[in-house]
Amino acid sequence: MAAATEVAPATLALIGTGQVAQALIAQIARLRSCGVPVPLRLVQLANARGVCTRDTPDWHARLAALAALPRGARNDPTPRIADAVELVIDLSASDAVAACHAEWLRQGRIVVTANKCGLGESAARAETLQAHIDAAPWRYGDSATVGAGLGAVRRLRELRACGETVHEIAGVLSGTLAWLFDRYDGRAAFSACVREAHALGLTEPDPRDDVGGADVLRKLRILARAIGWRVPDDGVRIDPRLRCGQGDDPWADIAALDTGIAALFAERPTADARLAVVARARPGDYRIGIEWLPPDDPLAQRGGCDNAILIRSERYAERPLVLRGPGAGPALTAAAVLEDALTAWRAQSRQG
Amino acid sequence: MAAATEVAPATLALIGTGQVAQALIAQIARLRSCGVPVPLRLVQLANARGVCTRDTPDWHARLAALAALPRGARNDPTPRIADAVELVIDLSASDAVAACHAEWLRQGRIVVTANKCGLGESAARAETLQAHIDAAPWRYGDSATVGAGLGAVRRLRELRACGETVHEIAGVLSGTLAWLFDRYDGRAAFSACVREAHALGLTEPDPRDDVGGADVLRKLRILARAIGWRVPDDGVRIDPRLRCGQGDDPWADIAALDTGIAALFAERPTADARLAVVARARPGDYRIGIEWLPPDDPLAQRGGCDNAILIRSERYAERPLVLRGPGAGPALTAAAVLEDALTAWRAQSRQG
Repeated sequence: MAAATEVAPATLALIGTGQVAQALIAQIARLRSCGVPVPLRLVQLANARGVCTRDTPDWHARLAALAALPRGARNDPTPRIADAVELVIDLSASDAVAACHAEWLRQGRIVVTANKCGLGESAARAETLQAHIDAAPWRYGDSATVGAGLGAVRRLRELRACGETVHEIAGVLSGTLAWLFDRYDGRAAFSACVREAHALGLTEPDPRDDVGGADVLRKLRILARAIGWRVPDDGVRIDPRLRCGQGDDPWADIAALDTGIAALFAERPTADARLAVVARARPGDYRIGIEWLPPDDPLAQRGGCDNAILIRSERYAERPLVLRGPGAGPALTAAAVLEDALTAWRAQSRQG
Repeated sequence: MAAATEVAPATLALIGTGQVAQALIAQIARLRSCGVPVPLRLVQLANARGVCTRDTPDWHARLAALAALPRGARNDPTPRIADAVELVIDLSASDAVAACHAEWLRQGRIVVTANKCGLGESAARAETLQAHIDAAPWRYGDSATVGAGLGAVRRLRELRACGETVHEIAGVLSGTLAWLFDRYDGRAAFSACVREAHALGLTEPDPRDDVGGADVLRKLRILARAIGWRVPDDGVRIDPRLRCGQGDDPWADIAALDTGIAALFAERPTADARLAVVARARPGDYRIGIEWLPPDDPLAQRGGCDNAILIRSERYAERPLVLRGPGAGPALTAAAVLEDALTAWRAQSRQG
């Protein structure tokens, strides 16, 4: 754990060349410049447009070159991982790449991922992955997939490993939606808030990816599955007021939500209640809804784009456990990924 | 992690026969009755008055018999641990027992503890312990020493292991003090609140142990040392308004604080500010003070006897990471201890 007992480096394949990858490489460089050993040796770098497999001290240039390849040059959505690779870091958002996680684990590699499509999509894929995680839990690092590394996924797995009975997991899991519903005051149209968030760079390029709940849906599945609950495909109810069309004009689809969301104010319980999109999981009951929260609700006590996750269990029956903090951004995501990678590699090295 | 890959049982010595020990044994029994394997085999049970070393299925009766020994029969404050013991659980509050932790680690045993005197007392003892923890981090489990298992100590060690620069740790670390300063409204004397808490069983038998800050002092040292800061002996400034005499009459010593605490209301910044005893650690600057917190401060947003711990770091610069939840009680402490014991034993078994 401490620098004194540092381990031999892991050979690393990095998939994805976007903002998180750039932040990760910058963090590793900064740590090394401070004398902190980072036992990772890049041997492969890839995105959907290309791959380079030689080791290089010059990550930045390679990354920039790969990132600059034209989008149209999509020739290899799931690059073949070099035999020497011990640790794969998946920073893509690709379903095809996530479909490879289980195979990489089967080959004895460590997989660290910010890609929510591994445990956040179909039940069948999640179960296959879970079998690998049960056999060697340290070899799958996915802290970055929910709450940008607040530690909720790991905490739930720890509780599960100790036989704790969890009654409910609830969370404000999207920093973008948190910001949007904080901002929305029922006067201007909701879609105007979305336009504002979009201009500030707080949404995905297509804001329907945030507003429609697809991102929260994956996070909810990941949390519920971490505690051992089976979430069937199509087993999560999403508030119809969030259901976006998928037409040619994203803004028209967003504007179509305005009336339904405006009607929320008719349900406002008190003047100081706060609106939030809350994901709630109980065994067999999974839902994402727009809720009015009283101001003393832990999920209402946030700021900015903070995430908040609440766990009620046998141990935390009377008062819940609450994890709260910034839940978005390339730097935080990269830090969670790096932490998972180092933790996993040290654990693997101890198996020796 | 999952039941499918369960390990062979650890031979266990349990030190302490109080409420936490009873809660721990009840939890193990309940888990087993639910079919959850708990790989622990009790071979030694001890308190300051006695020890029994035969394995027995009847923990309850043995524990009750040891707990019932008259207090005057103190014959062995630091029982000799049987050679076969692989895992020692220290649920005492004994400084003499904590002084043995390093030796037990040196002998290759796992030590799991709710006893704050290990890393919470002298710098010299903490440094010796830390050297063992650096060499084999999984072999010292002390989640229960701060926040009854909210995970703050572990989170700080994880951040340290990844080279994260922490700027500040702040916390409401005593459920008792949290309750007391929530209750106190400047009208009745502070000592009247303490009497009320005492009657409700919320304080130590001698309430000066809570009010004087000794418990918070140890917790602050443990958190600061977890991130790698050296806290010198006498290196923590404690608010003089909390400094209790140690005379023959505890209630007279408590009542002597009334005037100083009443004067706090002259500093009240706003009507909705909340009083709390806050421990703050920055590198080289460690203090425990009574503070007026604005209502939107994460440390003010608690209920009941909740603990709240806030971490500001490079990663959590703009918005802090906040851990919050119930921070006291035998059941919670026992659950944290059991979790540490199982996690440590599984990690040790993987080294195999």
